[in-house]
Amino acid sequence: MRLLDTDRLFPSDPQSRGIARALYESVRDLPILSPHGHTDPRWFAENRNFKNPAELFVIPDHYVFRMLASQGISMAALGLPRLDGQPVESDPRTIWQLFADHYFLFRGTPSALWLDHSFEQVFGLDVPLSSDTAEHYYQHIDTCLSFRDFRPRALFERFNIEAIATTESALDDLRWHEMIAKSGWNGRVLTTYRPDAVVDPEFEGFADNVRKLGEITGCDTASYNGYLDAHRIRRAFFKSMGATATDHGHASARTEDLPPFEAAALFATALAGQCTSDEADAFRGHMLTEMARMSLNDGLVLQIHPGAVRNHSKSVVQAYGRDKGFDIPAQTDFVHALRPLLNAVGMEKNLTIIVFTLDETAFSRELAPLAGAYPALKLGPPWWFFDSYEGMRRFRETTTETCGFYNTVGFNDDTRAFCSIPARHDLARRSDCAYLATLVATGRLRENEAFEVANDLAYRLAKQAYQL
Amino acid sequence: MRLLDTDRLFPSDPQSRGIARALYESVRDLPILSPHGHTDPRWFAENRNFKNPAELFVIPDHYVFRMLASQGISMAALGLPRLDGQPVESDPRTIWQLFADHYFLFRGTPSALWLDHSFEQVFGLDVPLSSDTAEHYYQHIDTCLSFRDFRPRALFERFNIEAIATTESALDDLRWHEMIAKSGWNGRVLTTYRPDAVVDPEFEGFADNVRKLGEITGCDTASYNGYLDAHRIRRAFFKSMGATATDHGHASARTEDLPPFEAAALFATALAGQCTSDEADAFRGHMLTEMARMSLNDGLVLQIHPGAVRNHSKSVVQAYGRDKGFDIPAQTDFVHALRPLLNAVGMEKNLTIIVFTLDETAFSRELAPLAGAYPALKLGPPWWFFDSYEGMRRFRETTTETCGFYNTVGFNDDTRAFCSIPARHDLARRSDCAYLATLVATGRLRENEAFEVANDLAYRLAKQAYQL
Amino acid sequence: MRLLDTDRLFPSDPQSRGIARALYESVRDLPILSPHGHTDPRWFAENRNFKNPAELFVIPDHYVFRMLASQGISMAALGLPRLDGQPVESDPRTIWQLFADHYFLFRGTPSALWLDHSFEQVFGLDVPLSSDTAEHYYQHIDTCLSFRDFRPRALFERFNIEAIATTESALDDLRWHEMIAKSGWNGRVLTTYRPDAVVDPEFEGFADNVRKLGEITGCDTASYNGYLDAHRIRRAFFKSMGATATDHGHASARTEDLPPFEAAALFATALAGQCTSDEADAFRGHMLTEMARMSLNDGLVLQIHPGAVRNHSKSVVQAYGRDKGFDIPAQTDFVHALRPLLNAVGMEKNLTIIVFTLDETAFSRELAPLAGAYPALKLGPPWWFFDSYEGMRRFRETTTETCGFYNTVGFNDDTRAFCSIPARHDLARRSDCAYLATLVATGRLRENEAFEVANDLAYRLAKQAYQL
Repeated sequence: MRLLDTDRLFPSDPQSRGIARALYESVRDLPILSPHGHTDPRWFAENRNFKNPAELFVIPDHYVFRMLASQGISMAALGLPRLDGQPVESDPRTIWQLFADHYFLFRGTPSALWLDHSFEQVFGLDVPLSSDTAEHYYQHIDTCLSFRDFRPRALFERFNIEAIATTESALDDLRWHEMIAKSGWNGRVLTTYRPDAVVDPEFEGFADNVRKLGEITGCDTASYNGYLDAHRIRRAFFKSMGATATDHGHASARTEDLPPFEAAALFATALAGQCTSDEADAFRGHMLTEMARMSLNDGLVLQIHPGAVRNHSKSVVQAYGRDKGFDIPAQTDFVHALRPLLNAVGMEKNLTIIVFTLDETAFSRELAPLAGAYPALKLGPPWWFFDSYEGMRRFRETTTETCGFYNTVGFNDDTRAFCSIPARHDLARRSDCAYLATLVATGRLRENEAFEVANDLAYRLAKQAYQL
Repeated sequence: MRLLDTDRLFPSDPQSRGIARALYESVRDLPILSPHGHTDPRWFAENRNFKNPAELFVIPDHYVFRMLASQGISMAALGLPRLDGQPVESDPRTIWQLFADHYFLFRGTPSALWLDHSFEQVFGLDVPLSSDTAEHYYQHIDTCLSFRDFRPRALFERFNIEAIATTESALDDLRWHEMIAKSGWNGRVLTTYRPDAVVDPEFEGFADNVRKLGEITGCDTASYNGYLDAHRIRRAFFKSMGATATDHGHASARTEDLPPFEAAALFATALAGQCTSDEADAFRGHMLTEMARMSLNDGLVLQIHPGAVRNHSKSVVQAYGRDKGFDIPAQTDFVHALRPLLNAVGMEKNLTIIVFTLDETAFSRELAPLAGAYPALKLGPPWWFFDSYEGMRRFRETTTETCGFYNTVGFNDDTRAFCSIPARHDLARRSDCAYLATLVATGRLRENEAFEVANDLAYRLAKQAYQL
Repeated sequence: MRLLDTDRLFPSDPQSRGIARALYESVRDLPILSPHGHTDPRWFAENRNFKNPAELFVIPDHYVFRMLASQGISMAALGLPRLDGQPVESDPRTIWQLFADHYFLFRGTPSALWLDHSFEQVFGLDVPLSSDTAEHYYQHIDTCLSFRDFRPRALFERFNIEAIATTESALDDLRWHEMIAKSGWNGRVLTTYRPDAVVDPEFEGFADNVRKLGEITGCDTASYNGYLDAHRIRRAFFKSMGATATDHGHASARTEDLPPFEAAALFATALAGQCTSDEADAFRGHMLTEMARMSLNDGLVLQIHPGAVRNHSKSVVQAYGRDKGFDIPAQTDFVHALRPLLNAVGMEKNLTIIVFTLDETAFSRELAPLAGAYPALKLGPPWWFFDSYEGMRRFRETTTETCGFYNTVGFNDDTRAFCSIPARHDLARRSDCAYLATLVATGRLRENEAFEVANDLAYRLAKQAYQL
């Protein structure tokens, strides 16, 4: 038995399906470019075996534990550590069984497709996961994980990853990247400059973080100019460790382009911990424009991931901390919010700003029109909740007619779930081929063009946009 | 001739259609659970014959008369009573002919499918309704209505309704439910606690309503604590008459969780008729949280139906009153609005809050992410304008990937049009089977799983969520 | 070789495709009604040959040059004149080659379908445009343009245009329409009354424009009543030159219905150049209601095109001026914004208000519910970025179930790209037939009804709504 339908995600009418199959065949085996994500560089530096099935598939995957939580299973029962150190479930077999008992909850979700893909393609399993097969799964995966072939570097190579980017804080010492570089292994693992901790006045410990930034760089970060210089120095350091991009996650897409003296005053207020919420937002927004100006000099691609209301549940964040599946999208305005940034640098041909959204309504209304006009602006792939077949279909259907394919940048897996990476790229390739096949079958694209575009979406556009 | 295509709403490619047909066959004859709606309990209590075709199909159905009104037909010509008592059309044959003359306006709408379903399945008609067949229709339906077999209880049984919930004001004496209970008839007709008149400071006669609530319950509703007690007593009474749920319809989804003394002060201001519009909104929002707390004790399911701008046309409400088809949806925020409620009770496993929306953009952006995280929160089915094939398709396509099937609660017909109930459930079952068939045909769901989910969506989830 | 697939845009499953084909056959050759657009009446008045391929297809088409600009091609290189008179590319062959080199950017866009349609159907070309064929294209089109058969009136007749409306400022002398009328040519070219320059206090030169309006009409436009009279006189003049409609483009859909003295005071403030931004918005909103009242008298159809943030890029508008592809849609509220207008005149049966949107989310949430209730309100076809296959599909899928087909008004091409007119109407007819075929194939519409509706959408509804 197979867990996966070989024609999955292709249109169901035979003519379109045939075209989709042919397109997919032409891109299926292309190397994976993963220009934005959250895998742990330490895995590749140390190359230790992953511990057990629960630690590989359940405990770190917010898609998985949030769904289980939504049906009343406590995070403690799933082994998620509590901040107060109170005991949580520690037996990986018990956790795995609980997961398997509720695996039906994932029916119709991308998680089920990713997991089944990993189970079948990475571990060679051939019966569906359920209460009954939980023990078989556990044994089998656990055994595999003890093998050399299932260590991070071996999987990296088996997954045919040409390059993968991780994401590190501006204050990170990048030791794991250094260790990888010195190891002689030729897997390409890049870092990404993520300065939220030192550009967001509302980030925990902001002033302290800025002080540390000064120490690391030798700049006087108590002054605004010194602070900007410190960013330049850190960016150069990250670039030396392979970075081709920066990344910025804010609650809104607000940008500002303040006169220097205003920005400096705001910075001083922020350091003093006296920003109002609106001033904090303005400073974050201004720093996006400053980062874009630095990008004009050092060539780093600017990524903006706006629109998540973080830590929606107070009790969850208090018990388990950040990133526990309770970040909820909100309406996001782009047309007004990005205007200061775009007026400052949007017409630059040698700058790449990649914007993502959790508010899909913005695609046809704001983002495709903006990306279809400003040379610097490109659209990131469907993100997070929309990293899915329907999400990708809606993305293409609501953007292509206005900004075409060439103002988009291929796929990002954006994940910390390592085994899901091939599954996610496969899902994206299939979804894009399905869309292209539909265009061909309905006379909206010539077949020879579709083959070229399929390659562009699966590989070339990511390489080009992220300079990989 | 048949009015209805037996394969209606199934995907058109043969493979998917075959799967949809098989799935539908497996749920077609399941009993109907109607956990939320607006049928009149008096029908089942008195079991009198319905009067005539116009009073059955035209005059009470806002989907019907609003469409006719939109093309310039006055509501008076359709027999809708004017508040000022001025004469309106009173000949049901004339009204029926006018309706039939304009039946083409409903092309492509769910109303046409519901009506044709009723005409064919309930009344055995086999020619389409038009100007020419209007008289034939009238005669035929009118004759049927005089028969015993077309009385409310007979139809209830013929429709295979296992349970139906009506909706009554907190001040209602539930006499018809009592009469049903005492009648020995074993049709299950439940009430639902709808306290808008006594929780909304802007409801006509609010203070007077609260006073009446005090009289009915023997509580001192001039005090906030007495007022809360009165709710508890009424809820218990409704529960004794079968209620398993409460229902709340507000313009926004705003919730609050105020300290008791603030809530009490706001209540006093409201009773004095001195609330600002924002204070009234805050009080309504706070009462949602109080109702949820009471639900924790008495187990009633909390339903929230937000987002309609009521009585958009001043002249229509002045001439004909409320609920005349001029309620228009507005943008509705959930992520911020529901936060106080969810922070108060969202992590409770033994509470069910079912939220509906008239702003479909919230499904993928806010509601599915929220329902896919908080144990207490479930998504109600597509509502009102979205109780339709496309509405259901979009609902599944925008929610399933994020919160799965098991954070939804099956179908609600939510109607006062009794004969449309089997039609609406049939439409929902077909639409869901069509969606499931598409998932199977594209390798996103195994066929055996689809049969289980089809049953869940048609029957089991409603039974479970509403404790029927 | 053909550039166009003869079955393009039809559903791909054979049964639905067969129905779509038959429906399309029945409307393909209907005359074109173009009740709203921006062609230049001078073309038809003077009937001169178009100059060259670049001036026909590239320089005036904002869909084309914005896409090229988005990939870093300067507008100067495309021959767009700079406001400061600095030289721009002037060789049409060079511009054409640059366009051809980047023609792949339009893959999957309606522009590609429109252009290929023009190339094939108007000019008889049979190889795809590319770098290699650019010269062949240029030569061929350039030669054609020198022929009598390719002059504006000949094309007008060949395109089978029954009537076309242009759009002129309230201050326009309509000389070209007069010249057409006097020429003896029987092509029907109507004007449309577009008073933005004299109703928008923020329009450049507003006070001066109002003064000119006074001169033209002999009214005292310094007084509010004289100003309203001047509108009445101008509307009558436009009507005498064929106008059946007025058109209004505002940033929001805000309407007001102010007491006359307040409106007069606001007008005085506007004339004095002292309006705040909110007051200017209120005055524009109030004038929509005044225009609707005038429509009740003179029968002109009122069109509202709200929601574009104009001139998003400061540098583009400074270098090249308005309408250069940098107008970006924004969220648009209709439910509250249109309420004053609809309360004033929405229940009038003899008034037609046609509303358009650039915020598609409003279709299912606000616009279809409003149009499905108010007799005066009709929905314009998908506009601008949504004048496309997917845009039309979403439009029908999100409006039909709520307001049916008969609260919509057929197609508008809304273009200044003359050769694209047959292409755009063909695309709309195909898209609508595809939608209707899907309804028939899924049992939501009877086949005989679909033929009638296809004719309504392609021809009859536009004729009726715009009184053509």
